[in-house]
Amino acid sequence: MCIADPTPDPLFTQQTITRRMGKFTLHSRPYTLVLRHVFTIASGSRSTTPVVLVRLDYDGVSGYGEASMPPYLGESHESVMAFLSKVDLRDFDDPFQTAAILAHIDGLSERDTAAKAALDIALHDLLGKLMGQPWHRIWGYDPTKAPHTSFTIGIDTAEVVRKKVAEAAPYQILKVKLGLDTDKMMIETIREVTDKPLCADINQGWKNRDAALDMAHWLAERGVVFLEQPMPKTQIDDNAWLTERSPIPTVADEAVQRLADVRRAWGAYSGINIKLMKCTGLREAHQMAELARALDMKVMLGCMTETSCAISAAAQLAPAVDWADLDGALLIDNDVFRGMEIAAGRVVPPNAPGIGVSVR
Amino acid sequence: MCIADPTPDPLFTQQTITRRMGKFTLHSRPYTLVLRHVFTIASGSRSTTPVVLVRLDYDGVSGYGEASMPPYLGESHESVMAFLSKVDLRDFDDPFQTAAILAHIDGLSERDTAAKAALDIALHDLLGKLMGQPWHRIWGYDPTKAPHTSFTIGIDTAEVVRKKVAEAAPYQILKVKLGLDTDKMMIETIREVTDKPLCADINQGWKNRDAALDMAHWLAERGVVFLEQPMPKTQIDDNAWLTERSPIPTVADEAVQRLADVRRAWGAYSGINIKLMKCTGLREAHQMAELARALDMKVMLGCMTETSCAISAAAQLAPAVDWADLDGALLIDNDVFRGMEIAAGRVVPPNAPGIGVSVR
Repeated sequence: MCIADPTPDPLFTQQTITRRMGKFTLHSRPYTLVLRHVFTIASGSRSTTPVVLVRLDYDGVSGYGEASMPPYLGESHESVMAFLSKVDLRDFDDPFQTAAILAHIDGLSERDTAAKAALDIALHDLLGKLMGQPWHRIWGYDPTKAPHTSFTIGIDTAEVVRKKVAEAAPYQILKVKLGLDTDKMMIETIREVTDKPLCADINQGWKNRDAALDMAHWLAERGVVFLEQPMPKTQIDDNAWLTERSPIPTVADEAVQRLADVRRAWGAYSGINIKLMKCTGLREAHQMAELARALDMKVMLGCMTETSCAISAAAQLAPAVDWADLDGALLIDNDVFRGMEIAAGRVVPPNAPGIGVSVR
Repeated sequence: MCIADPTPDPLFTQQTITRRMGKFTLHSRPYTLVLRHVFTIASGSRSTTPVVLVRLDYDGVSGYGEASMPPYLGESHESVMAFLSKVDLRDFDDPFQTAAILAHIDGLSERDTAAKAALDIALHDLLGKLMGQPWHRIWGYDPTKAPHTSFTIGIDTAEVVRKKVAEAAPYQILKVKLGLDTDKMMIETIREVTDKPLCADINQGWKNRDAALDMAHWLAERGVVFLEQPMPKTQIDDNAWLTERSPIPTVADEAVQRLADVRRAWGAYSGINIKLMKCTGLREAHQMAELARALDMKVMLGCMTETSCAISAAAQLAPAVDWADLDGALLIDNDVFRGMEIAAGRVVPPNAPGIGVSVR
């Protein structure tokens, strides 16, 4: 069992809000991740990502969690800290009441999914430590079944793209951001320097279904293995039309946030992308993965720019998915956790209890 | 942690086959349950039920399991013992490889679902003990959410039915077996002596959909809350037609055995009945319950005539279901386990690690 260190946790000294709630104590601290490269996708560019780090203590045991708030999703340091200040776990004296605790937290607001995920991750870390097992073992998964992780190449000039491909040498599959008018240039530039399999993340960038189908064929011929969110999520019929005809699977990303969205995506997409920050955390992510499997859908596991905390939480589910895109912690310069490792490009879910992280 | 007693387990002395398989040891023993009353449903009558009791040992810890084989389902002492003799866990040195171990076992034959369930239950008991928690806590459920259990009244003479209703005094909901030409007599006899809510288990006994709908209305007016497997499972369209029009929900029993059947039942029934002996055990049962929830279907938890071993395993899932029919151990005279209790008619999932049973 991982007992909370009696010496102060270096992560939670500065800017930290500490609240006692009955048998639980919650520490939370805003933090800013610095990206290694300015990152461009169809919707914009950025060089930092705000996160909030949390620690949930119960009976001398601590669980770590994290909220990551890429600005286009609407959460921020302020909104997450405000949400966390509303949470009161005084009515719960048993952390194993996971369903009830998380339903209570979810009911506090309509959105705030990253803030909710921070608490869910910390609770799972705590519970896994109380049981002495990592969650991939509690769920009965074989960690050697975890897939390779893709390494993301943002939309950029040919020169930068070539540099990023070189940087991605340890990875066996690359994820290419598409959706602007530079799509063919991006792929051709990459294909000049590598024949690794690619996945294409269009981020809703294609608007016309006939052009989308043409591109799907063009990309399939160039070793692209799936299309992530090819068309706007509101164009449900167009995405379904494309899914039916595309030579490679389609994966819903923006169109699927939570468990209830999976059923709606059935038929319109070949698979779903699960991200902890969108679905409120590990409990719902696990339910989404199992549901998608039961509906014969493909499952991809994605991330935001995150420290090894949220990444290692996601890695618990990796053995149950087809494709993993867990490079979030690789893209930052100031990770504060150690956890999930990558061996020859493959995700290695950590073997320590809970989510398996330690503070650097 | 529950260490295997160094004194011989009294359950596994007679007629026991013991096999060492690498780090695992499996004990198995045929046993015959004696019913308190001769039991009649639409398909026949009987006074005993064959079961096989198993114990899976790993690293000094023991997990208990049970297969129950009501004869109409096609398994027997011989078939279960033969199946268990084929199982070899030598390739697995870690009991937490649940998905891989159970997939291996499931792949050994097409059916033998009760034999498979015995191993799944024993493995879950073992794992829960290794983690120091009952499965309802590992799954994050609130045990106080477990429903009342129904008490089953078989098809019989008015005199015996009245006697059974009196015997059912501690239970808040009765399950009435229907499907012969005595349906109205059964209900009228019960309504002479009690106004408790009833559920009707027709066991595919109704063949005509118009007559079925008439009966559904007649039963709803008399306080029946749902219809279990009203028409033959092969009459898919008739069951769907009835579900669409019935004033009370329909629940698939014979039509749903395993996870893959749940998706097919969606639309044709309002809910599903999950039985460990049909679905190969707790792992798949938990997946079925979560899938049905995600599809907005009702969930019922059923049982065979079983000892408190298999019943206590099923009770782990009770907090996640709408209706429980876990009276299997109450109907027998020679239970060899203690485990799930019933308090004022309500299922109380045991609070001990694993499935929470001890040998009587």
